[in-house]
Amino acid sequence: MQQRVTLQDIREAAERIRPYIRRTPILREKNMDGIVNCQMYLKPEMLQVIGAFKLRGATNKFLSLTPEEQKKGIITSSSGNHGQACAYLGQMFGVPVTVVVPHDTPSLKVNNARAMGAEVILWDLDYDARWAKIHELVAEHGYNIIHPFEDSAVMAGQGTIALEVLENLSDLDTIVVPIGGGGLISGISTFVKESGSKARVIGVQATACAAYYTSRKNGSPTEVSGGSTVADGLACHRPGNLPYPIIEKYVDDIVVVGEEEILEAVRIVADKAKLIGEPSACVGIAALMTGLIKTRPDEKVCTVLTSGNWGIEKIGRILKGETVEGITRVQDCTNNR
Amino acid sequence: MQQRVTLQDIREAAERIRPYIRRTPILREKNMDGIVNCQMYLKPEMLQVIGAFKLRGATNKFLSLTPEEQKKGIITSSSGNHGQACAYLGQMFGVPVTVVVPHDTPSLKVNNARAMGAEVILWDLDYDARWAKIHELVAEHGYNIIHPFEDSAVMAGQGTIALEVLENLSDLDTIVVPIGGGGLISGISTFVKESGSKARVIGVQATACAAYYTSRKNGSPTEVSGGSTVADGLACHRPGNLPYPIIEKYVDDIVVVGEEEILEAVRIVADKAKLIGEPSACVGIAALMTGLIKTRPDEKVCTVLTSGNWGIEKIGRILKGETVEGITRVQDCTNNR
Repeated sequence: MQQRVTLQDIREAAERIRPYIRRTPILREKNMDGIVNCQMYLKPEMLQVIGAFKLRGATNKFLSLTPEEQKKGIITSSSGNHGQACAYLGQMFGVPVTVVVPHDTPSLKVNNARAMGAEVILWDLDYDARWAKIHELVAEHGYNIIHPFEDSAVMAGQGTIALEVLENLSDLDTIVVPIGGGGLISGISTFVKESGSKARVIGVQATACAAYYTSRKNGSPTEVSGGSTVADGLACHRPGNLPYPIIEKYVDDIVVVGEEEILEAVRIVADKAKLIGEPSACVGIAALMTGLIKTRPDEKVCTVLTSGNWGIEKIGRILKGETVEGITRVQDCTNNR
Repeated sequence: MQQRVTLQDIREAAERIRPYIRRTPILREKNMDGIVNCQMYLKPEMLQVIGAFKLRGATNKFLSLTPEEQKKGIITSSSGNHGQACAYLGQMFGVPVTVVVPHDTPSLKVNNARAMGAEVILWDLDYDARWAKIHELVAEHGYNIIHPFEDSAVMAGQGTIALEVLENLSDLDTIVVPIGGGGLISGISTFVKESGSKARVIGVQATACAAYYTSRKNGSPTEVSGGSTVADGLACHRPGNLPYPIIEKYVDDIVVVGEEEILEAVRIVADKAKLIGEPSACVGIAALMTGLIKTRPDEKVCTVLTSGNWGIEKIGRILKGETVEGITRVQDCTNNR
């Protein structure tokens, strides 16, 4: 596994995945400017195939395998958007997909993956035990692991978002990116900084579970206990080995936002941009509207709206203004991605 | 006022409005195919500037005026998306905008228009009395009327949607279009049929208020009493003079959908396409999913999702699965557009 991701990796990834992913538009949302104190641009990855950016990284990894490897199939540990992306790849390319998830994973997520033809194995709640099972299956069947973020090919795929943003908006001042496992912002910040752009890269985490924020404050990788957060897609209690040094090198600032602000941001995205964003996707808007990220009114700021795959009934409750309790048990970095 | 709209008008409109509107993407929504029994493509005009296609027609009309006329300002009778489009034009080009609406118009809509600098005049509930007031103001101030649909320049602007769809998808089989006043489908059907495309054009109305559907059945323009409908943007109880003959000539079929199906379609659009559509925007999906429009699984069908400007709390209730009562008093063709 290559230890870092380069500008060239991301450029090659963009060519490689082009036939399979959607180039999402960049939306200039003037009617949000007053709320976020900048010139607001959105990169709406909920409009991506499967409703999340995760397909970019998983597709790039899959296409980087040899034809023989591809035929043997892929395996991962995620019931969330990354798992859905892998299941979708299996369906599209006709290869077996195995997903190993905790045995308390909601049946809706299990059924979604199975409906796309994935084999879902309900296994231990313990992270290490699940990965031991995965390595056992790899040894037995020759499956290829597609990790949600500890993989340079995955990070390169996610980084294609920055390539698209800068092609459309070369004078971008700031890009705001949610941080969960850290693969997305690793790819994006690498492209931004190594392509010569002067744009700032700002990461956003939920206060309830802020491993990268805490690690930066402490000056070393720090595991956090983490409470539950409505931004379940970002639930991750320890920094990734590959993303951490990239984030420390290239990400200008990391901020944290609270639960109420996240829910308000979901409402704003629906009301102003007419897009369904899951809470994880809207933390960038939350950070801007609360002034945690300092901006000027004439500053061109793009935030990546990462995904829209949340129960529609739950989104309805948020839009209706009802209180939605944090619902995610934060246990490790890969359960929810 | 020119009495019909031509292919050339629409091509010129596309060039004229290009700097001011957004070319919305065409989204291939494979995960809706099973629900609608076709290959589903969406044209999401809720992503248009102001959240509705109406800006296309109003902008084309405004830019068709002479500079002297433009300076004198514009006037219309609409508190809905067409009124918002006019108010936006006034703000963008720095010209006065007057909107004459019934005195029981919700204050939210009035305030939205005023926030964009429009003068809002609350006037009689009676349609003819309001238009008498408009003509009085035109005589006094030299304002230019931008009618929501009785205007070939407005219809040409709306028709640019078909031009974009066919540029992206030349082998389109069917396009499905909501019908309110009829300006949108007049522009779209003119472009489709006169450009040589073989695509069917199907219009959709709400059963509760189906003037064009009823008129076609009767073989002559028919006024309907109309009940209230959740698809308030389509509330129109008589066919327009200009749109009616175009629709009779070029629209292959008109179907009607019920209230529950419309609400279900709003949920599907949010859940599958991650887009906020107001009920009026989603009637095409409702007609497809109920099988009212006969389709084959391999048929390429595009439906225009016209707009997303509905109270976010109301959308929340729909997504949550709550019953939403019809809320619109159907009184005439221009109140709600």
